Amino acid sequence: MPVIFDAPVYAHRLSTAAELAHSQGLAGLIIGTGPELAYLTGSTISSHERLTALVIPAQGTPQLVVPATDLGELAHSAVPELEIEIRGWVDGDRPHSLAVESLPTSGAVALGSSLTTIHVLTLQQLLPGRSTVPAATTLADLFMVKDPAEISQLKRAGEAIDAVHQQVPGLLLPGHTERQVADTLAKLILVEHEVVDFVIVGSGPNGADPHHSYSDRVLESGDVVVVDLGGTLDTGYHSDETRTYIVGGPEAATAKAREAYEVLFNAHAAAVAAVAPGVSAADLDAAARAVITEAGYGDYFIHRTGHGIGLSTHEEPYLMAGNNLPVEPGMCFSVEPGIYLPGEWGMRLEDIVTVTSSGAEYLSYQHRELR
Amino acid sequence: MPVIFDAPVYAHRLSTAAELAHSQGLAGLIIGTGPELAYLTGSTISSHERLTALVIPAQGTPQLVVPATDLGELAHSAVPELEIEIRGWVDGDRPHSLAVESLPTSGAVALGSSLTTIHVLTLQQLLPGRSTVPAATTLADLFMVKDPAEISQLKRAGEAIDAVHQQVPGLLLPGHTERQVADTLAKLILVEHEVVDFVIVGSGPNGADPHHSYSDRVLESGDVVVVDLGGTLDTGYHSDETRTYIVGGPEAATAKAREAYEVLFNAHAAAVAAVAPGVSAADLDAAARAVITEAGYGDYFIHRTGHGIGLSTHEEPYLMAGNNLPVEPGMCFSVEPGIYLPGEWGMRLEDIVTVTSSGAEYLSYQHRELR
Repeated sequence: MPVIFDAPVYAHRLSTAAELAHSQGLAGLIIGTGPELAYLTGSTISSHERLTALVIPAQGTPQLVVPATDLGELAHSAVPELEIEIRGWVDGDRPHSLAVESLPTSGAVALGSSLTTIHVLTLQQLLPGRSTVPAATTLADLFMVKDPAEISQLKRAGEAIDAVHQQVPGLLLPGHTERQVADTLAKLILVEHEVVDFVIVGSGPNGADPHHSYSDRVLESGDVVVVDLGGTLDTGYHSDETRTYIVGGPEAATAKAREAYEVLFNAHAAAVAAVAPGVSAADLDAAARAVITEAGYGDYFIHRTGHGIGLSTHEEPYLMAGNNLPVEPGMCFSVEPGIYLPGEWGMRLEDIVTVTSSGAEYLSYQHRELR
Repeated sequence: MPVIFDAPVYAHRLSTAAELAHSQGLAGLIIGTGPELAYLTGSTISSHERLTALVIPAQGTPQLVVPATDLGELAHSAVPELEIEIRGWVDGDRPHSLAVESLPTSGAVALGSSLTTIHVLTLQQLLPGRSTVPAATTLADLFMVKDPAEISQLKRAGEAIDAVHQQVPGLLLPGHTERQVADTLAKLILVEHEVVDFVIVGSGPNGADPHHSYSDRVLESGDVVVVDLGGTLDTGYHSDETRTYIVGGPEAATAKAREAYEVLFNAHAAAVAAVAPGVSAADLDAAARAVITEAGYGDYFIHRTGHGIGLSTHEEPYLMAGNNLPVEPGMCFSVEPGIYLPGEWGMRLEDIVTVTSSGAEYLSYQHRELR
């Protein structure tokens, strides 16, 4: 993966992160690998179970604690151009101590999202009497509100996955299996993306399981088919788009399926229409859910209405009950209500939108009618 | 992935886990997804950022807290045949509370390795005044000591990756790129495995970076090439084997490279020869390191000597300085010393071995001489 932005972009993000930590009274942040490290440094290094930690003190120079085995990978990031002190370590060293030593000796510490149990507990042991908080909360504004360059990457992602969905109707032929369709779709995703994140082809009763991937089930005329596709661009940004199709075209569907799809379509439209700065994530979820509940399908909409997206496929903000976060211009998230009738079929309609000063802008355009 | 063992195998593991928690005075365990969940229930469910938690009280019935969206996946595991109470949750619920409520109200709690920061901190908030410890430590004996059925899976994995390495010499032709070789190797790995875990083809100076994957570098006669390959079997067990090759055959190598390889070969043999019940992981690391250091290459062996392997590629026991764990019959780990000369080349020799009552047994057999 290339470094996608110039070094000053990352330098600004790092200093903003330090300011956020400082303004919240924290000693600093310890960030692991994954999307958060990529966002802050352009590095997609993965050191597996070995600790890689970007330590950002509330004031002072950031440090990167990294295994000697992975030092070479840093060349493929903005790190060499940034004011970051590199602290290599070898097996048998105590990298967690290196990380903690780079922070002030008092104050709470924010921990990056990708750190796993062993790392969290080891760091906590080295921070006796000090509290630890999620860096995802500390840096929520930074991560959630995308700048124009990021939004343009998510638009690229939307166009990429639109181009794949465009070809789905021609693939959903009676007699073909979900797996055959999925194999072709995986290849088409790779034409437009660097990595296939997931391919869901859920026909008939399989569609009622929202996380079904695909099977050897043979498609029949009239089948309702949920197709949910996602990939990673060369820049690390993700696409994610779902459409519901009818094998043989909408006229082959049962009246019940067609009516339910209209409910779903309206629920999706209601949530998108409700998007505006200051409206809460929970209210957006409620806007979609109200339409589905009113039509009698409330018990069959068994997941949240959406999730943020960027350098990870699922991130804050989550559109769900209880999340009172007000959305802000620049936030990007999916709107994806669904209806799942066990034993019959499932349907879902998903687009990525970004919040503007006045409402929502779609980042995927492929038409939304039942096809 | 199929359920590979009969339900009683998992039932036994679950009860052993509870006994270990009980004997260590813990309230119980909260295990996330990944290899630990697969080991205990046969489930390879992945609920991404949503919490899936197998809660094993020190006494009483285990509970599985799982998102409603993923309930369907449990059919592909031993869970339906096990005495496990399922607690589904939907977005907006408080799944961490469900997990904690399934445990006694006092006593320390062990947390599974795959849980990430948000889950760990949220669970800790719900366990005020109670300590949390790594489940990997609590269950170390259970996870590290493989039973005969597991060892036979790791033998299958060794044979599978042997079969791929067997074909490497024919692929390392002058004029071909690392990428061309790696693409072919990925296909060959899939003939023998379900998933390609990694392909490293590090020729010349690229080999000096132990985590280099592959590049467009063109192979030349006399190049030293590190080839490290791994995949996942249909049963979830992993292979991992490294050999060092010379483009054009050993006679094309420099005298220096041939001599260094002899050092590496002897270091590898010394560590394998040192394996016996009761010998510490650190001593095995030291056995390999001593040979390399004595030959003057000590500064160029920049990683530990090995890692455990099973349902994950890297797990305890780690053969490295400071790890005083005595190895026991049934443990399975890699022995993989390396020498990395920046700007020149790298070399590594890696096999998986299992500890027997008297020493080590190889789980990969492909010959170890420079080829």
